[in-house]
Amino acid sequence: MKEREWLQAIKPKSYRQPSVIKGFGDDGAVIKPPVGHELVIVTDAMVEDVHFSLDYMSLYEVGYRVLAANISDLIAMGSRPLYYLVSLTVPSHYQVQDMTLLYEGMGELAKEAHMDLIGGDTTGGSQLMISITAYGSVLPQYKRLRQHAKPKDIVFTTGYLGEAGYGFDLLQKNPSHSNRFANQHKQPKLRLAFTYVSENLTRLALNDISDGIATELNELAEASQVNITIEADALPIHPDMQHLSKNKQLKYALTAGEDFELVGTCSNEEWNKLEDLCNTYSIPVKRIGTVSSMTSSTPQVFLYQNNQAHLLTSSGYEHQ
Amino acid sequence: MKEREWLQAIKPKSYRQPSVIKGFGDDGAVIKPPVGHELVIVTDAMVEDVHFSLDYMSLYEVGYRVLAANISDLIAMGSRPLYYLVSLTVPSHYQVQDMTLLYEGMGELAKEAHMDLIGGDTTGGSQLMISITAYGSVLPQYKRLRQHAKPKDIVFTTGYLGEAGYGFDLLQKNPSHSNRFANQHKQPKLRLAFTYVSENLTRLALNDISDGIATELNELAEASQVNITIEADALPIHPDMQHLSKNKQLKYALTAGEDFELVGTCSNEEWNKLEDLCNTYSIPVKRIGTVSSMTSSTPQVFLYQNNQAHLLTSSGYEHQ
Repeated sequence: MKEREWLQAIKPKSYRQPSVIKGFGDDGAVIKPPVGHELVIVTDAMVEDVHFSLDYMSLYEVGYRVLAANISDLIAMGSRPLYYLVSLTVPSHYQVQDMTLLYEGMGELAKEAHMDLIGGDTTGGSQLMISITAYGSVLPQYKRLRQHAKPKDIVFTTGYLGEAGYGFDLLQKNPSHSNRFANQHKQPKLRLAFTYVSENLTRLALNDISDGIATELNELAEASQVNITIEADALPIHPDMQHLSKNKQLKYALTAGEDFELVGTCSNEEWNKLEDLCNTYSIPVKRIGTVSSMTSSTPQVFLYQNNQAHLLTSSGYEHQ
Repeated sequence: MKEREWLQAIKPKSYRQPSVIKGFGDDGAVIKPPVGHELVIVTDAMVEDVHFSLDYMSLYEVGYRVLAANISDLIAMGSRPLYYLVSLTVPSHYQVQDMTLLYEGMGELAKEAHMDLIGGDTTGGSQLMISITAYGSVLPQYKRLRQHAKPKDIVFTTGYLGEAGYGFDLLQKNPSHSNRFANQHKQPKLRLAFTYVSENLTRLALNDISDGIATELNELAEASQVNITIEADALPIHPDMQHLSKNKQLKYALTAGEDFELVGTCSNEEWNKLEDLCNTYSIPVKRIGTVSSMTSSTPQVFLYQNNQAHLLTSSGYEHQ
């Protein structure tokens, strides 16, 4: 694969974002983010046979999904997506048209998110690896950090939980499986409009669900130095997963990641406003628990089930 | 290697740059570049057994070198280095202490360049891969693009040419070789102070020498739509390489890359000022040629040798 012809193929002809001063074509890209805004930088990579397999995903879907993972982080910071850079390691058996497919998958989502591809780097290697660095802008007061949760906050989540994890398992059994769960794994729906919800609220703590809600909640509790309690019966699980055993449903909902839904906390006072705003932007949102002060020297997360509180760690909950 | 303990080990305790609003510890980093400045973004990756081998380089040197390649691009854009993110793919046989060495190598250079590590991503994989995205700030008028060359400009280069290429060949013969050439390949000296030179000049076209001066000059000519002529006898070649045949010396100087010296053009009027400024900052600089108008429909680069002009393409020159 010749880098020169390849660059010609993927180089954008124009840029959507006026803050791109110089995209492709020099030693680096040059941007000038809007005055008063902060720039959010996220990075996430996918490696063949570690994070995906071409047995059940097309290169188009791989491109889509790796950019989705990055945009999801931008949303979780409260920022509006702007640009992305792609660093590729490509084994020699891949052709230019393969990589074009990969870029088309990214391009579809980039168009939806109004983002620009502004640069990248391509090298040879034994394993296909796609690393993206993505950028978003946010006004300082709308920056949504994990450390923003406070006692008495409401804990909420968007959409359904565990869909992508269930879809992944279906794809392992049958690589050509195609239903909403398999699709949620391959081309996850993002909550792009949540940034507009966020920009209308005073305070939010926010995480995207990339590693499972158990991990995300522990991160929020840790960063904010609070306890969090969620209710098992309140977790949003899709009706088409309800034929699974209760235990299996709970496992998917708590520990399967990569749904790229959002989990966060807001003040009791702003909860109704958040619900209304989500409704306006067609984002399903559900109250799943509450934040409280720490009761010991370390923050803890609890799962309330059958009138009992179970400690919920990053890897799941402990039956007592 | 557990990502959590690993992150604790490399996470900076403080940040040098006041524009880092949030470094490690959330879904993304947050920065606020100085008002009025533009942000330059560069990316460059190194893959084991493609770009380096641990037979002749330590992980410390690998870390140093991959960050050096990125900083060199920042300098070539006229910008001051600010931050960097690291995306790693790490095979399972590597230990935490191996990766710590890699980060120490980057850290040494980051300290010298006053840069902050603000984030990253680590995944498993079959081959060690280090991809860096680095950032610099520049006032719009000091942005140094390849398209800035004009007819009658002076073409200059810093330092000596071909040192790293020669060093690489020495290391292939004897992995424990240790002289200035081997060291220039493993831990290239950067022209960090050139940014201060650049900020005192009106106009510069600039490239760093990552792929060999033949390629860099063709890029400058192409972007600026000019012809460039350089003189073979003017090329700065280190005295300790002068025992090599003339042809071999020329080959190293023209086509061996990764010296991370700079090549550029400035106006005739500013050449003396550039020389004086380089002198002030202890940067060896040499006039090697001139820019002229195109004589055909495409830009061309010529090497003048023995009273004859040879066409110099990216891959070298053609004897006639």
